[in-house]
Amino acid sequence: MEVSGGMVSLIDKLKQGDTAALARLITLLEEGELDMASIEHIVGKTGVSFKIGFTGPPGAGKSSLIDWIMKHIRAAGGTVGVLATDPSSPFTGGAILGDRIRMQHHFLDDRVFIRSLGSRGASGGISRIARDASYLMQAAGYGFIILETVGVGQTELDIMDIADTVAVVLVPESGDFVQAMKAGLMEAADIFVVNKADREGSRQMVSAIKFLIETSPPGHDSWQVPVMPTNGLDGTGTAELFGTVLAHREFLGSHGNADLMLRKRLHELKQIVIEHLGMRVDGMISEALMSGYSEELADPSVSVYSILNRLMHDERLLGMLLKRG
Amino acid sequence: MEVSGGMVSLIDKLKQGDTAALARLITLLEEGELDMASIEHIVGKTGVSFKIGFTGPPGAGKSSLIDWIMKHIRAAGGTVGVLATDPSSPFTGGAILGDRIRMQHHFLDDRVFIRSLGSRGASGGISRIARDASYLMQAAGYGFIILETVGVGQTELDIMDIADTVAVVLVPESGDFVQAMKAGLMEAADIFVVNKADREGSRQMVSAIKFLIETSPPGHDSWQVPVMPTNGLDGTGTAELFGTVLAHREFLGSHGNADLMLRKRLHELKQIVIEHLGMRVDGMISEALMSGYSEELADPSVSVYSILNRLMHDERLLGMLLKRG
Repeated sequence: MEVSGGMVSLIDKLKQGDTAALARLITLLEEGELDMASIEHIVGKTGVSFKIGFTGPPGAGKSSLIDWIMKHIRAAGGTVGVLATDPSSPFTGGAILGDRIRMQHHFLDDRVFIRSLGSRGASGGISRIARDASYLMQAAGYGFIILETVGVGQTELDIMDIADTVAVVLVPESGDFVQAMKAGLMEAADIFVVNKADREGSRQMVSAIKFLIETSPPGHDSWQVPVMPTNGLDGTGTAELFGTVLAHREFLGSHGNADLMLRKRLHELKQIVIEHLGMRVDGMISEALMSGYSEELADPSVSVYSILNRLMHDERLLGMLLKRG
Repeated sequence: MEVSGGMVSLIDKLKQGDTAALARLITLLEEGELDMASIEHIVGKTGVSFKIGFTGPPGAGKSSLIDWIMKHIRAAGGTVGVLATDPSSPFTGGAILGDRIRMQHHFLDDRVFIRSLGSRGASGGISRIARDASYLMQAAGYGFIILETVGVGQTELDIMDIADTVAVVLVPESGDFVQAMKAGLMEAADIFVVNKADREGSRQMVSAIKFLIETSPPGHDSWQVPVMPTNGLDGTGTAELFGTVLAHREFLGSHGNADLMLRKRLHELKQIVIEHLGMRVDGMISEALMSGYSEELADPSVSVYSILNRLMHDERLLGMLLKRG
């Protein structure tokens, strides 16, 4: 696989931590102009970033919390990149002016990089783009990467799969937690955060979540999922939250959890292999159309499953899946 | 590929239009217990159903409209199956009692089949399940299949890809249309419906949508996307809506649109080939783990892209992709 000269220079700048190069490469990625060869070239040998996911319903105050976590990371001397895919997030431009101004100080800090990813981009691709953008940030040297999504669908859960630590942020409002459970967030959570903890019902919500975790533990081996009250307005509890993220990182890095990390890597490898094959399948289907399959393909009474069966016995077409790209 | 004896008997019942067999097979599908061999066996040679998709924001009144369309289909002597994936739909049990009772008459009609699909099911799979469930309904002989989703994310757009005709349902409320545009519904729509057309602002909304269609036409070749006012409460405009669906079916079937139908089929074939390969990729990765890749896979400083590159040059592992299943 070949990478063009202009791309090599952009990649060099990226690896020196040039934020303009990073921003440009993420834009290329979103526009589908960054091929796998270039991504492979970029991320073949880089440092390792720790990825923190924040998800939860709209209005849970995720971006205020992220704002505080960024401050704690910077105070500890770390660098941080944020990838926001929640369309209602202030990071993605959907918020009131006050929120935006509050975050301005980060924009003046070059150890912090904030980027929103459009939810339209290349079809079916927002979780893929988030994954590859986080690799680009990793290559640019950011020690922490924060992924923000609004937890409603499978796409958002797929993005949370990228994260090493997933914080599910809820607020003490009726129905909120039930919706989160339905959306599959219970299983995804490494940490539960009850934000706006000054509100009525907050202690009851913390107790209820703890009860549910104890009676139906998520599949996290020996990690005890904590439930943490916070207040994104004044930062109450956010230092403890960051401390818990670090404790979870420690937990993942400890010897007994090699299996957990390996499972995550295998899952990611599978995704990448399938995406790679997907591009070859395009070629294989085009070829099928030109060589004896066109009639069946045009006939709606022949199911695509029948055609699948024929393709999977066609040595010549199968060979196209394996050709060097 | 082998299909068990019990399955063959269930499939026979399905093909006789037995709704209990259909319901059972959809449950097996949701539980991941229906393999591709069985699906292929079922849908290899069946009639062709016409698939209508209804999408739009929650509260747009999609299910009332569907209720009317079902009546029109039945009045015309047709049979209809409904697959609902909108968690707020009365079909999926999320609605107030009144709505449910209103639909009871359909449940007493055996030429009508209504089924909701859980949004949790097998991971990443709701659009795949919707596609295969609609094939099961097709095999059971339903002439029309209605797919209902709430138009917010990529998953819902993927489900709409299955439909032959996509109706995007909006109500005259501020922001509704802008949200629909952001969600990519503009491009997906074959028909726009402005429901609750008795409300203030309805005529302005119809005009605004028409203006936008004229100035930035969706990629629908020569089909002029209509904008239809309806009222789901008393059925106003729903006969015209059904007429327009039939006109769109006519349009798709006409000679000049063979390309459009072919593109849809090719897209679906690609999805199915990738799902099929996906299962084999699982085996390939397990094998990689046991044969020389385990160290790299366990080392987070080696990117999965590097491993991809190595896998794609490993003849033995690539061979596993092609083995007969």
